[in-house]
Amino acid sequence: MSIKVLLLGCGLIGREIARDLTRNGEFLVIALDKESSNLNELSGIAGISPHLVNINDREPFANLALDCDIVVNALPSFVGFSALQSVIELGRDIVDISFFGEDPFSLDALAKEREVTAIVDCGVAPGLSHILVGKACSQLEVVKKIRIYVGGLPRTPEPPWYYRAVFSPIDVIEEYLRPARMILNGHAISVDPLDEVERIEIDGIGNLEAFTSDGLRTLLTTIKAEEMLEKTLRYPGHLSMMRALRDAGLFGHEPPLVNGKEVPPIDVLAQLVFPKWKLQEGEEDLTFLRVIVDGIQRGKSKLFTFELLDRYDTENNVTSMARTTAYTATSAVRLITNGIYSESGVCPPEYLGMHPPSCEAILSFLRERNVLIRECVE
Amino acid sequence: MSIKVLLLGCGLIGREIARDLTRNGEFLVIALDKESSNLNELSGIAGISPHLVNINDREPFANLALDCDIVVNALPSFVGFSALQSVIELGRDIVDISFFGEDPFSLDALAKEREVTAIVDCGVAPGLSHILVGKACSQLEVVKKIRIYVGGLPRTPEPPWYYRAVFSPIDVIEEYLRPARMILNGHAISVDPLDEVERIEIDGIGNLEAFTSDGLRTLLTTIKAEEMLEKTLRYPGHLSMMRALRDAGLFGHEPPLVNGKEVPPIDVLAQLVFPKWKLQEGEEDLTFLRVIVDGIQRGKSKLFTFELLDRYDTENNVTSMARTTAYTATSAVRLITNGIYSESGVCPPEYLGMHPPSCEAILSFLRERNVLIRECVE
Repeated sequence: MSIKVLLLGCGLIGREIARDLTRNGEFLVIALDKESSNLNELSGIAGISPHLVNINDREPFANLALDCDIVVNALPSFVGFSALQSVIELGRDIVDISFFGEDPFSLDALAKEREVTAIVDCGVAPGLSHILVGKACSQLEVVKKIRIYVGGLPRTPEPPWYYRAVFSPIDVIEEYLRPARMILNGHAISVDPLDEVERIEIDGIGNLEAFTSDGLRTLLTTIKAEEMLEKTLRYPGHLSMMRALRDAGLFGHEPPLVNGKEVPPIDVLAQLVFPKWKLQEGEEDLTFLRVIVDGIQRGKSKLFTFELLDRYDTENNVTSMARTTAYTATSAVRLITNGIYSESGVCPPEYLGMHPPSCEAILSFLRERNVLIRECVE
Repeated sequence: MSIKVLLLGCGLIGREIARDLTRNGEFLVIALDKESSNLNELSGIAGISPHLVNINDREPFANLALDCDIVVNALPSFVGFSALQSVIELGRDIVDISFFGEDPFSLDALAKEREVTAIVDCGVAPGLSHILVGKACSQLEVVKKIRIYVGGLPRTPEPPWYYRAVFSPIDVIEEYLRPARMILNGHAISVDPLDEVERIEIDGIGNLEAFTSDGLRTLLTTIKAEEMLEKTLRYPGHLSMMRALRDAGLFGHEPPLVNGKEVPPIDVLAQLVFPKWKLQEGEEDLTFLRVIVDGIQRGKSKLFTFELLDRYDTENNVTSMARTTAYTATSAVRLITNGIYSESGVCPPEYLGMHPPSCEAILSFLRERNVLIRECVE
């Protein structure tokens, strides 16, 4: 009998998770979403059973979860944490890519108590980024610097946005809003993401702008280093647009009364802008990830550089962001169901990177799907 | 008995028109506005009688107009034209600074029929700009080039807007929206105001950005030249913000349904941004105007350059924009009431500039109020 996976959220990434898990009849996927338009994308695929359920409807949700062996949380960040908590309470293993703002370790004791493996932040960055950081750090006595550069971008930038949202657009806005934590000279600091923009040139893409993003997350507590940062990449022109909209107050949730009607500015922005951030018919995306880890191994300086430049899958019409994110998550699902990783508790992806059998399994799994990571050691 | 002036609109400029007309007991001003907050600014000033009336309430408005000798239209552009038309129909002379989008000459026949003098576009630019153009052109056989540069700016630019609205903010947005008509190589063309931004340095202010604005208006039909343009000045940083907001769709009136509520995006923008465009307590503004007219006089090349750099009146707490706009308008009122200008019909300000007694009267009147124009002839 096939293993049953409950998939929470069938958005841009969730859909590819469902397809990947069912492609070879390996899993049965119970796909849950509150939007029928999202579920329609999955209709007629063998092994996928769509359910129109709102995550806030506790009973139907709990019944579905209890009927499954493992859960994947691909909901947007604002509902991600409470869903994770519910699943752990229900005693089901879970792989989470929801990018919630809360501290996942606050659920560690609960997960251990319920004997649940909860692999969190398991997308591309955070996710694959942290696996690679873990892989490098496990080979070092001292970690000095960790730098992560990541970008999910349309292949061809178009004005005025020079951008397409390849995952939940409301979580793209989150990246511009959340104070970005980093380590500088051994001290934890926090910066405004849109405050400082660095110009950077990437082979195969061109000139980009990098902003400090709050993607280190669990690394801030699991690894000690002198310097640690994550920067997210955009084409020139996009970030100045974002700053203007933020400065105009359009990222706010505070509902001001407009013409006597309560309208949160962010909802206006979502309605005006998010449709324009959709990849157009025939448009392709790419994903870039560079992870640099600098440290000391057996008394000598050692520099690891990992690089990924992934492109849209034109054969199956799958975005590169869906590929890299979904396949990292589905490889984590397999680690659990294969028994390769079985520790109870909250498991950030760097733990998988530090665990050689898990790390090898993930990278070989990604290779099979043509998600290729170049590793360079100096 | 004093002459009675009906003032339509007691906003940032209208208030100073009321004060100037009544300062020496010269006029009685019936001040009309639909906002009591605007009228409150004028309460207790001798000679000003505030009336809370909406311009769309035809009867009270008509009764007030018929009881007055002359009208000044200082309403925002979107109601400006219909108010002008009503006043002409009622047979009252009028000075208009409302910056409406319609063609004023469409009311010329009506004004002549009703024996009304309607001086339109009589602010700073259009207004003083056109008076100076008229002054120069009346001395030339051939007009080659006309260039107008104008800016109403805070003295000190503050991020993120680098701007304060010194007149109706909705009409500031109009400047960014209205296709800007200009003459290039003898041909009339129309450009998107925010499309091309020129860097320009102005003595006494510094580096600015200039965009093509639709301020030529009547000049496009009253004067023939090879080249004619108006550019409006802003501090660097402002126009890129405006482009972002425009591109995000926030200048639109089209009401999209947000959360099931009809909310025109421009109303959201107005609510979020316009309060931030107010001059803050103690903040000062300045007004720059440069008019360049190039042509041929008695067979020889002649270049006129007029320049105005006016500053906030700290003694009376009057913005420079109110000074330069209001005093141009009130000088036109006096031209009519003194009988210096008495032609029936629609009179754009260049006609006043071409009429030496009117032009001299206006410039001397402005000089008395310390609005000083430097004239240079080469």
